[in-house]
Amino acid sequence: MQTMIDLIDKKLDEYLPIIYPEDIFKAMKYTVTLPGKRLRPVMCLETTRMLGGDMNKAIPTACAIEMLHAQSLIHDDLPCMDNDDFRRGNPSNHKVFGEANAVLAGDALLTFAPQLIIEKSELSPETVLKLVHEFTKWGGAYALIAGQVVDIESEKGKFVKSPEETLQFIHNNKTGALFKLSMRTGAIIANADAEVMKEIDRFAQNFGLAFQIYDDIMDEISSFEELGKTVGKDKNSGKLTYASLYGLEEAKNKFSSHINICYDIIEKYDSEIISGIINKLSSRLTGV
Amino acid sequence: MQTMIDLIDKKLDEYLPIIYPEDIFKAMKYTVTLPGKRLRPVMCLETTRMLGGDMNKAIPTACAIEMLHAQSLIHDDLPCMDNDDFRRGNPSNHKVFGEANAVLAGDALLTFAPQLIIEKSELSPETVLKLVHEFTKWGGAYALIAGQVVDIESEKGKFVKSPEETLQFIHNNKTGALFKLSMRTGAIIANADAEVMKEIDRFAQNFGLAFQIYDDIMDEISSFEELGKTVGKDKNSGKLTYASLYGLEEAKNKFSSHINICYDIIEKYDSEIISGIINKLSSRLTGV
Repeated sequence: MQTMIDLIDKKLDEYLPIIYPEDIFKAMKYTVTLPGKRLRPVMCLETTRMLGGDMNKAIPTACAIEMLHAQSLIHDDLPCMDNDDFRRGNPSNHKVFGEANAVLAGDALLTFAPQLIIEKSELSPETVLKLVHEFTKWGGAYALIAGQVVDIESEKGKFVKSPEETLQFIHNNKTGALFKLSMRTGAIIANADAEVMKEIDRFAQNFGLAFQIYDDIMDEISSFEELGKTVGKDKNSGKLTYASLYGLEEAKNKFSSHINICYDIIEKYDSEIISGIINKLSSRLTGV
Repeated sequence: MQTMIDLIDKKLDEYLPIIYPEDIFKAMKYTVTLPGKRLRPVMCLETTRMLGGDMNKAIPTACAIEMLHAQSLIHDDLPCMDNDDFRRGNPSNHKVFGEANAVLAGDALLTFAPQLIIEKSELSPETVLKLVHEFTKWGGAYALIAGQVVDIESEKGKFVKSPEETLQFIHNNKTGALFKLSMRTGAIIANADAEVMKEIDRFAQNFGLAFQIYDDIMDEISSFEELGKTVGKDKNSGKLTYASLYGLEEAKNKFSSHINICYDIIEKYDSEIISGIINKLSSRLTGV
């Protein structure tokens, strides 16, 4: 896994040159290259590999997804949104570059990411178009952004659906969408058939929820050093989370039921890396 | 031209449904459907038509470009950018929906626009991919956003290049990029050859500059009623404009020299609509 992360880090650096006007490229590069787990790009590359595809052809897409992820972090941290001063243990984007550049750096990443897929993937136009289509479907108003909007509204106590449905909507979209995008694009590059795609979708759906429940629990019990961002913020802001809605124990049970579905699916494929990711989340939660 | 505008307005309304979560779709739709001249989509459709292509196939792309334009307006108006309370004679997006939703509505438009091109254009995957590629090239850090960044920096008196070069960079990118995108995509849909594309580029380049000089002059001499936005703002903020850098007379001369190149090029094509647009700008400036 570390080899894969190193490869992704090297490519992220390479894909983002610092040219005139430097401030925008520096702001884009800053958040994208902050040290991170690279979970989404790793899952993209690994899905291609485990389904028999050429992992190298997935690199631009994997990096584009990390850029989309960084974009969502930059805008989420803005004063008008979550107003967070730290990200991955470092000052958040607007703290370093100012709010205007942070807004524009996010915008720029949102157009640069699909551009990267188009310019650097050595794949047929049909396949590239499918990848960009997935990118737009999961990265926009129908998924990622819908999740963020409902999240912000729920914080203000504004509910259209029940709290349970609202929470599930937020996490399916805010967190689940990018895992779906990562694994679906990985599968597309490997030319997966409809049957496999269905399983990949089911895995990503459950993994996304498990990951978010994990994150919600960690926000309550972890430390700043471990998370690299402000801790206990969700709880203090009265935010709707698995921990606040169901309590820590029930949240852990829900985590287990989603992660068990993931185990069942991934067993059929030979992926040490994805099994390792699941194991790590599981054992971290069992220990608390 | 009015027929074309009506068609674009109808399609913009149709392409943007109000679904859950409604706030984001309402915010997206609000700025996109504010009454406007629809200059960019009209030029996209008209370029396709005048080059012998099927204008109907350009409709999704034309609307996507208007959405990109609206996105740039929404984010430009934010308090951390130009801080403008009005747009097209109405309260700006963040005044109606709040800053968080305005940021997210812009983001959503930025991913929805290429999605629209992919899902609604009835063209070959190769052509659709070319259109989306143009969209990412002109809408991002290498053009539109670069222009906006340098614009903001120049307002703070921060120059890397000379004022003249800086101003030209801003306008080539901030204004010119979307006209290039509009006409280039129109030409791609009409299967224009390299020779024609070169002329289209030259037209768009000069039109973009002429249009921006026009806009700079209007900002000084027009009224709120006419512009639908705050007037004299550029001058009051000490912003770098053609009027401030060269004076009104010289700015008008520069306008004329760019617009004359446009006349020369468009003469070869049979486009009443584009000739009409040029004439309108020209006669408005001659009258002042």
